Amino acid sequence: MFNLHTFSLFDHLSDTAISKRIVASTVAGASVLDAGVHTAGSLAAGVGLARLCLADRAEVTLVPCDERSFVSPNAVFVRTDDPIGACLAAQYAGWPIHTDDFFAMGSGPMRAARGREELLTELKINETASTVFGVLESDKLPTQSAIELISDQCKVPPAQVRLAIAPSSSIAGNIQVVARSIETALHKLHALKFDVRQIVSATGHAPLPPPAKPGDSIGGIGRTNDAILYGASVTLWTDASDDEIENVAANVPSNSSPDHGQPFAKIFKTYDFDFYKVDPQLFSPAVVTIHNLRSGRTWNVGQIETALLRQSFLS
Amino acid sequence: MFNLHTFSLFDHLSDTAISKRIVASTVAGASVLDAGVHTAGSLAAGVGLARLCLADRAEVTLVPCDERSFVSPNAVFVRTDDPIGACLAAQYAGWPIHTDDFFAMGSGPMRAARGREELLTELKINETASTVFGVLESDKLPTQSAIELISDQCKVPPAQVRLAIAPSSSIAGNIQVVARSIETALHKLHALKFDVRQIVSATGHAPLPPPAKPGDSIGGIGRTNDAILYGASVTLWTDASDDEIENVAANVPSNSSPDHGQPFAKIFKTYDFDFYKVDPQLFSPAVVTIHNLRSGRTWNVGQIETALLRQSFLS
Amino acid sequence: MFNLHTFSLFDHLSDTAISKRIVASTVAGASVLDAGVHTAGSLAAGVGLARLCLADRAEVTLVPCDERSFVSPNAVFVRTDDPIGACLAAQYAGWPIHTDDFFAMGSGPMRAARGREELLTELKINETASTVFGVLESDKLPTQSAIELISDQCKVPPAQVRLAIAPSSSIAGNIQVVARSIETALHKLHALKFDVRQIVSATGHAPLPPPAKPGDSIGGIGRTNDAILYGASVTLWTDASDDEIENVAANVPSNSSPDHGQPFAKIFKTYDFDFYKVDPQLFSPAVVTIHNLRSGRTWNVGQIETALLRQSFLS
Repeated sequence: MFNLHTFSLFDHLSDTAISKRIVASTVAGASVLDAGVHTAGSLAAGVGLARLCLADRAEVTLVPCDERSFVSPNAVFVRTDDPIGACLAAQYAGWPIHTDDFFAMGSGPMRAARGREELLTELKINETASTVFGVLESDKLPTQSAIELISDQCKVPPAQVRLAIAPSSSIAGNIQVVARSIETALHKLHALKFDVRQIVSATGHAPLPPPAKPGDSIGGIGRTNDAILYGASVTLWTDASDDEIENVAANVPSNSSPDHGQPFAKIFKTYDFDFYKVDPQLFSPAVVTIHNLRSGRTWNVGQIETALLRQSFLS
Repeated sequence: MFNLHTFSLFDHLSDTAISKRIVASTVAGASVLDAGVHTAGSLAAGVGLARLCLADRAEVTLVPCDERSFVSPNAVFVRTDDPIGACLAAQYAGWPIHTDDFFAMGSGPMRAARGREELLTELKINETASTVFGVLESDKLPTQSAIELISDQCKVPPAQVRLAIAPSSSIAGNIQVVARSIETALHKLHALKFDVRQIVSATGHAPLPPPAKPGDSIGGIGRTNDAILYGASVTLWTDASDDEIENVAANVPSNSSPDHGQPFAKIFKTYDFDFYKVDPQLFSPAVVTIHNLRSGRTWNVGQIETALLRQSFLS
Repeated sequence: MFNLHTFSLFDHLSDTAISKRIVASTVAGASVLDAGVHTAGSLAAGVGLARLCLADRAEVTLVPCDERSFVSPNAVFVRTDDPIGACLAAQYAGWPIHTDDFFAMGSGPMRAARGREELLTELKINETASTVFGVLESDKLPTQSAIELISDQCKVPPAQVRLAIAPSSSIAGNIQVVARSIETALHKLHALKFDVRQIVSATGHAPLPPPAKPGDSIGGIGRTNDAILYGASVTLWTDASDDEIENVAANVPSNSSPDHGQPFAKIFKTYDFDFYKVDPQLFSPAVVTIHNLRSGRTWNVGQIETALLRQSFLS
């Protein structure tokens, strides 16, 4: 029901497109909301895209934050009581949509309708949907071949594909990516073999970085990653044994990775811009707080890295 | 009209029960929403229960907060323009619901329909309601005798009793209790003989503690009290004489009590877990700011006790 | 469409007047919502008036804030994707409504229907409206002559004039004025000859000062100005050349003015309470962050002046 649940949110974004500087169009029969490719987009569009990624199963708010710690005066706060559904079934950008003439990382509930990712298979997430919703991170609009690929893999006609798109260097794309603080914590925990279905509720807070220069995808990726790696604080309410948590807690925050300590764009350059060479343990929030409902114990690990945020955001 | 005003909020909680992990049932004809006894509950259920206690006369939001000061990354922010109605007529847990087979502290607007508490009599709060709404803090569901007691004392048939329930050690119960920052300030001021009807509007902010271990009621009471006593900051907009405020201001925050300075669970233990032996002056926020509309003067008293919050939340 | 867009917000304020302690009346045929003259008003009324000023083109929220930096435990957070429309076409208090028996600074979308101010002419803002909406800052209700003036200059019959009013020393007026953080940054940038139409989106945060004593208009003006001058932090997302921003950035915050450094009431007194003698460069936020979407660069200038806020708010 991830896609069905997202229907009214997508309609609302369409209906309020003008005030959000979103441009609605049709590509190969699919509905496409451009929130940053050929339009400036907006803060409200960014919050909308973030919620769309999350299959409308999380609250997303822009909040003021302490500039001295977080370098940015603004932050994105996310809260969910369905962290697995919102962040893993929907938000995780686990679908590289690759055709002859298009590439984008795909996220949103359409992934659950496709159901092919290993992560989704392991979590037994798979649904049949009559309409599918997704978010693309790209600086060009999807092509006909991209729509056909999505339509085909999600088993819906092209006219039942609904997409929103923004580059990470745009106002809206920037917010959408920084709203992934909880998701990175869950993904890291999953990689650490923790049964993430034991996570009941979650909040996440990350500073909103300055959007990178248009077309500077390394800069966009760099700053949004830095906002998470060095600026995000995630709280997880879990129902697990203390041992299971104790075994992984210290390894959840980004400082458990040897790659921690440089702005992400620099790390990325060191590895010749090859994502697969970056230590996968790096992708996680700066700070993680785990409340165990079963025992009443709390783990608080990691720390905000203000100097690194400054290096990233103000360079 | 406290109960009538709460009708649509209760219906909304019922209608969205599944996504909030609330279980709706009927006990002796009364509608009961379980938000933490036989279910995990949720953050959203906690906000819902808090608003229900407050007779829907206050805004309640979960907000991020400064971990270094407040130990928790999350806080509960409450705002009301009817502090007496929201916090004293409804939210104050002033009704011990005691039968042969049940005990819980009762709060919510049903107290106004009962109308027997000394506090309510003094404030001339009393209403006739055709349906009554309440919140119980307990780790078991109400029994038939409890429903009959409520029905009888509120002068409505059992089918017109609507309750929500959660233990203070649950996610939802925890939020609901920590949303009482303003209420404790008002109650303390009332005990200090300040005419609380002079308080026009209020905000309150308290860190959200880790839920205690299920069944550990001392732990649950300890941490939620510590969140208020050592972590809450309350602002009151008043219309009074400066003298009246000056006479009481320094005594409003919790540090005016000789019992201040230990985690509440320790204090409680010292007094053999007898609430009546704890200094009643202790129950108040860490910091109180009083704006006097009549004079333009402000009193700011008390302080956040980070070390005590750490001792309480992370032990 | 600034006025048309405000219609439903004004109706909502009227419909919820009682719970907001707003008193609705009719003056010379015009609808007038009193939120602080003959009524205490409320926090919710203040948020409502702020949104009314902004032609409902911005989000306005009361948020908790760090008392140690901002002296007040509460702040007003404003966010808009139409900074020119919300803050300059509507919110700027650019219309001195002066008749034989009345004076108030007028703001809100009615200014766009009047269309006479130099600022509006330069920005080509002018609309024909069938109903106009405005906010007055005054401690008396508008007189018949005031309504006639507004009706005349906005080219609508008196019955199509809708006003809300509160003195800056009231709870609601206080919030309404402190919601002007973004507006002061835009106005200052305009005065510095920066083309403000290049500002795409904005957020602003300012501490909520204690309301001044009723009738103490200098105190009210003093504290609300200090909240902006010494406590506000504004973020602007712009699409401009780096040079244009570099040329003005350092002069945007209030510390670029030689009058910076004293509570505003003292400065005002020094100039014999003559606004026109105060350095116009002073009227701007304490901190300004400018993100340039075109280049990915950020400027961060100015600083919060905690000692001055303390001097202003707690004296």
